[in-house]
Amino acid sequence: MPNSLTAIYPGSFDPPTNGHLDLITRGAGLVNHLIVAILQNSQKQPLFTVAERTEMLKEITANLPNVEIDSFDGLLVDFAAHRQANTIIRGIRAVSDYETELHMALLNRSMRPETETVFLMASAEYSFLSSRMVKEIITLGGDASKFVPPAVMRRLHIKFPSTKE
Amino acid sequence: MPNSLTAIYPGSFDPPTNGHLDLITRGAGLVNHLIVAILQNSQKQPLFTVAERTEMLKEITANLPNVEIDSFDGLLVDFAAHRQANTIIRGIRAVSDYETELHMALLNRSMRPETETVFLMASAEYSFLSSRMVKEIITLGGDASKFVPPAVMRRLHIKFPSTKE
Amino acid sequence: MPNSLTAIYPGSFDPPTNGHLDLITRGAGLVNHLIVAILQNSQKQPLFTVAERTEMLKEITANLPNVEIDSFDGLLVDFAAHRQANTIIRGIRAVSDYETELHMALLNRSMRPETETVFLMASAEYSFLSSRMVKEIITLGGDASKFVPPAVMRRLHIKFPSTKE
Amino acid sequence: MPNSLTAIYPGSFDPPTNGHLDLITRGAGLVNHLIVAILQNSQKQPLFTVAERTEMLKEITANLPNVEIDSFDGLLVDFAAHRQANTIIRGIRAVSDYETELHMALLNRSMRPETETVFLMASAEYSFLSSRMVKEIITLGGDASKFVPPAVMRRLHIKFPSTKE
Amino acid sequence: MPNSLTAIYPGSFDPPTNGHLDLITRGAGLVNHLIVAILQNSQKQPLFTVAERTEMLKEITANLPNVEIDSFDGLLVDFAAHRQANTIIRGIRAVSDYETELHMALLNRSMRPETETVFLMASAEYSFLSSRMVKEIITLGGDASKFVPPAVMRRLHIKFPSTKE
Amino acid sequence: MPNSLTAIYPGSFDPPTNGHLDLITRGAGLVNHLIVAILQNSQKQPLFTVAERTEMLKEITANLPNVEIDSFDGLLVDFAAHRQANTIIRGIRAVSDYETELHMALLNRSMRPETETVFLMASAEYSFLSSRMVKEIITLGGDASKFVPPAVMRRLHIKFPSTKE
Repeated sequence: MPNSLTAIYPGSFDPPTNGHLDLITRGAGLVNHLIVAILQNSQKQPLFTVAERTEMLKEITANLPNVEIDSFDGLLVDFAAHRQANTIIRGIRAVSDYETELHMALLNRSMRPETETVFLMASAEYSFLSSRMVKEIITLGGDASKFVPPAVMRRLHIKFPSTKE
Repeated sequence: MPNSLTAIYPGSFDPPTNGHLDLITRGAGLVNHLIVAILQNSQKQPLFTVAERTEMLKEITANLPNVEIDSFDGLLVDFAAHRQANTIIRGIRAVSDYETELHMALLNRSMRPETETVFLMASAEYSFLSSRMVKEIITLGGDASKFVPPAVMRRLHIKFPSTKE
Repeated sequence: MPNSLTAIYPGSFDPPTNGHLDLITRGAGLVNHLIVAILQNSQKQPLFTVAERTEMLKEITANLPNVEIDSFDGLLVDFAAHRQANTIIRGIRAVSDYETELHMALLNRSMRPETETVFLMASAEYSFLSSRMVKEIITLGGDASKFVPPAVMRRLHIKFPSTKE
Repeated sequence: MPNSLTAIYPGSFDPPTNGHLDLITRGAGLVNHLIVAILQNSQKQPLFTVAERTEMLKEITANLPNVEIDSFDGLLVDFAAHRQANTIIRGIRAVSDYETELHMALLNRSMRPETETVFLMASAEYSFLSSRMVKEIITLGGDASKFVPPAVMRRLHIKFPSTKE
Repeated sequence: MPNSLTAIYPGSFDPPTNGHLDLITRGAGLVNHLIVAILQNSQKQPLFTVAERTEMLKEITANLPNVEIDSFDGLLVDFAAHRQANTIIRGIRAVSDYETELHMALLNRSMRPETETVFLMASAEYSFLSSRMVKEIITLGGDASKFVPPAVMRRLHIKFPSTKE
Repeated sequence: MPNSLTAIYPGSFDPPTNGHLDLITRGAGLVNHLIVAILQNSQKQPLFTVAERTEMLKEITANLPNVEIDSFDGLLVDFAAHRQANTIIRGIRAVSDYETELHMALLNRSMRPETETVFLMASAEYSFLSSRMVKEIITLGGDASKFVPPAVMRRLHIKFPSTKE
């Protein structure tokens, strides 16, 4: 019986979207302590540095006292062991997500049996939203302000000065 | 921040399978109090009465102190409100499950916004297992003892004396 | 080149939901004349008669001048030939819908090659909504007023006097 | 190493369609001996008796010397053991088929580990075809002659004298 | 009520396949004016230039008087606004297409609410066909003449002189 | 009627996993002669050379007398014609696999009609396993010894000396 349940919500958050914020808020309501864990993927060229992403996530979760922002590289199960958190929270938006996530959850349990992944369904209005889509809209000159929190939009305007408001 | 998280794991459990027991055990590790809630569906003709299902579930979860067996009819969200539990736990075995469950979760949230449904993936070895399959195997004279706990198998033998052991 | 495109939107509409109304409205914007065609399925026991469903559909589409309500039994392709309409409009809510609809579209084209089925995606907020769900909520004593137009809700209250408002 | 591979192609075949015949022909090219096995399902009310279905299957496979028609009730794995055949052949038409078939294959292997299920994809032109659809077309007065072999069409005309030719 | 419905069929068409031509032909039968819109994606290295793709599309649609070939970069919704076309036509071949397309349609409607995406299912015989597959077959020395119109095959032979005919 | 059925099991095998070995073993039980065919993909940068992959596959299939290791570039159907093998064996792990494989099978049959692809479902315990995942685990410093045969693990340790054992 968990008297102090800690969970990890891992992701790239490049940048955080309204869909991420929705999941963080709902996830924070389910556990005592929620660690939003930014994956440092050295291979991909991110739009925002880990420091910038940390800052944005801290700003947009400032009103959620049991949310902490952290980052990791290496295997998620090793980070989970290090943070003494056995619960992983993941959002699912679609069938294609479902399969990828199922395989990742089975793999993580195979590598560290005490790891439990729990899934939240994306809210209907965010079911089509992803960081990749936000970046694509911005790159093509579109307005992404419906899809990201204001604190993220401000930084997108700095990186892409010509974007619509 | 939940200091006493209660969750509901609803289902028909007619009969409970090893897949259900796996999910109950894993779910009980995630919350302070887990209510396994038997759906009383007056329209379908069940194999076991609600009393029998309650008894079986109590037997097989006897070693899990934070698990309670209850039953309900009507809407799940009304039962959740009555039991002051905002978290629903559901297992997903396959893409077809995923869609049904997604729609049910969205519907439940639409009817009662504080309801949060969290999903656990079925363990790989139980991904094909369902109460319906167990009943079909038994009806066709097969051996279901790999698929249900011994306490359930005993009762199946009483109902179907000619089944294999 | 169609100078007077007529399309058929077939369904059971037992009862019509907000999801149906959304699709009728969007479909009516795509064609010159839209025939909402109620399938008379003699085998299933409907909640509302075809006459009641016709009346409800007429009420809720009163503001759409190019929408007509009709009904049919037999094959959809025969009805389409009779009404000189080669275009069928169908909504898709989920992957499971997609496959059923794909097979139906291929079958209809195989039986009558000039038949073209066009698909509209359900709006995100109606993606989980179906007539069957509305009936289930009502039967279980829940409030379905978010899911159907007022003209439908009034008739549901007459059939189920004890439902919530 | 199999020097005399026998496989079973089970199904209801009520009635056999061009899709079934395509799979039987392709399956017969893969093994030494192919047993087409009609499932006697005592619960469902079939259109054709097992005797009629056997006769139709014999007629339409008369040119395939290594195909045998048989029938069974009970579990498929028990029939497979009885016929000393470890290979089951199944066709897949769509994602929904895929999941049902995957679960059935895993279940059968769980009950009898030497059972191996191999899957053939339905040919594109038969991907939407099923016995149920043929019966529905005929019931609604449509022409099913594109979808079943002539020997089946003849018998459908006897059962439904008013169907189109 | 549209008295002059214009629709856009966007894509890369690198190169156009028989599947594209089938959709253009069917789409042209549904609307008054169909704009086939080549996406200029500056990031990917195409096989054919936009000028070459325009020329091929013009040749293969020469017999369709209400089809126009155009190209665009930037957001599809901006191009749609510029061309005063609210209807987007897209083909779906498979479940994986379905999800990508659903998300794109929801996103486009979110950015420009008057945009309506209608979907046509790929014909069964083209359900596996894509520009990428054609390029792969050609690169591996195979014969792609079944999969593209002759006008496209001619240009492929010029780019890959050693391909089979 | 095949009196000497030869089948091809094609793949990249970079590296071979326990899932591949499971499929090879099961496939070898279905045919007289099984050719495991390594795809030489000149475009991707593999972890192991074709020579190394051949050696590993030979070691792990040493106990299967009817299995042969070969490699090919170009089209699979051309290799199948060259080896006089009409049967292709492929494993399916998930819905996303299913669609890719279905399209590939339809394409191969379109290019060479005598080609028949038969599918085996991955065993439940390997349903999440892929060469790509093994490489990712190793790259991130994890232990992959549960997922590959010992002969493969030895070579991974040579390439990645710091990996866990």
